[in-house]
Amino acid sequence: MRVVRVFAGEDVRYGLADASTITLISDEPFAAWETDDVISMVGARLMPPAMPTKIVCVGVNYKTHASEMGHELPEEPLIFLKPPTSMNAPCGDIHLPVGAGRVDYEGELAVVMGRRAHRVSPEDALTFVLGYTCANDVTARDIQKRDGQWTRAKGFDGFCPLGPWVETDVDPSDLLLETFVNGECVQSARTSDMIFDVPTLVSFISHVMTLLPGDIVLTGTPSGIGELHSGDVVEVRIEGIGGLTSRVV
Amino acid sequence: MRVVRVFAGEDVRYGLADASTITLISDEPFAAWETDDVISMVGARLMPPAMPTKIVCVGVNYKTHASEMGHELPEEPLIFLKPPTSMNAPCGDIHLPVGAGRVDYEGELAVVMGRRAHRVSPEDALTFVLGYTCANDVTARDIQKRDGQWTRAKGFDGFCPLGPWVETDVDPSDLLLETFVNGECVQSARTSDMIFDVPTLVSFISHVMTLLPGDIVLTGTPSGIGELHSGDVVEVRIEGIGGLTSRVV
Repeated sequence: MRVVRVFAGEDVRYGLADASTITLISDEPFAAWETDDVISMVGARLMPPAMPTKIVCVGVNYKTHASEMGHELPEEPLIFLKPPTSMNAPCGDIHLPVGAGRVDYEGELAVVMGRRAHRVSPEDALTFVLGYTCANDVTARDIQKRDGQWTRAKGFDGFCPLGPWVETDVDPSDLLLETFVNGECVQSARTSDMIFDVPTLVSFISHVMTLLPGDIVLTGTPSGIGELHSGDVVEVRIEGIGGLTSRVV
Repeated sequence: MRVVRVFAGEDVRYGLADASTITLISDEPFAAWETDDVISMVGARLMPPAMPTKIVCVGVNYKTHASEMGHELPEEPLIFLKPPTSMNAPCGDIHLPVGAGRVDYEGELAVVMGRRAHRVSPEDALTFVLGYTCANDVTARDIQKRDGQWTRAKGFDGFCPLGPWVETDVDPSDLLLETFVNGECVQSARTSDMIFDVPTLVSFISHVMTLLPGDIVLTGTPSGIGELHSGDVVEVRIEGIGGLTSRVV
């Protein structure tokens, strides 16, 4: 099942997408819902497919990225937050902030929570997940180094493109994750290369902060990070899910 | 005006408090509202007085605290986020997480936004603020040092007591801020000792991430931080606002 959020008239509604149509649903996908009107996928204006109260991100979760950043391998997941205002729709524009210096893409697998998760075990963790989508953890690299804390560098409005939909029927353990800039492949890795896998991450985070339906976990980026320039088109593509395209302006 | 959120039957409603009563209002304080039922302050169960989409915090914003932590004085505000799930009600319990090591209080002035603020100037910043309240930026100090990123150390459920109300008629520029542990004064400073004042902080943050009504800015803690132990009662008291009490369990 592919869960989208889409404009239907002036409202943004949840719906279920197939190749050509979107069937709107009467409530959130976490609640009991009934199917409603069907609209065409052609011309549909997709929004980020979840409305999180928080976006929890994991730093340095691929060995190859740890190496390129000069980080040692972590003994525990290293978490940080992006604000909900950083979310950006599929096909949205990433605005380069004035004076921010170098801004990078970071393609990532995003986990969307389906149920409230408080201190859950790794064994149970996936039963609290609604599904998976693509994310770009856009990062102002110069500010990241200067601040030490990563919040500002990763927290600008629009710095978290997310979508195109939440795929509920995919196993996150070994998916090909690729990022393309202007059609050229710049990141390519498998989610099986993560240092901490999805069940471990969801369990770990749920022992710190309760995860709520719609909350998002970004699972870290592999090696191959690089700079974005105005006019670039960047796509994060994950096997079994789809592609998330953004334009840099 | 003192804006509270309070249980009225099974619902949590906004209201306006005086010394003995709470007048419920029909909507959020950011919108047009009418007055409704009046309930007694005695026995009222107060909740955190705002429902933020994000809690933006400022590190190292008093010279004395920078000195005790061994930080250099920052040239720009250093921001980080606490998740909404860290919020804790007035008179709530702060739970010491198992295995977290040392956990500290940090008394702070909290700013509650009243209007959407996107790239506002320091001169205009205060017109976007609803008012001010007390906050305790509870911090697991050992984890903070170990992680480098402060999100986990400051993000545990209940690690952000907030309240008791939003005072809308106070000038934040020179207020006495005190923290008491078991009745003993452990922090005492004036908000005029901040490195970056409230208008500067709101303006700076609004140039990174759009602030929405109800969003909260914690403005940093002065010197005198220290450890909390089970059974302690900690109170953050700010001149012209009131006192925020929590119990450590």
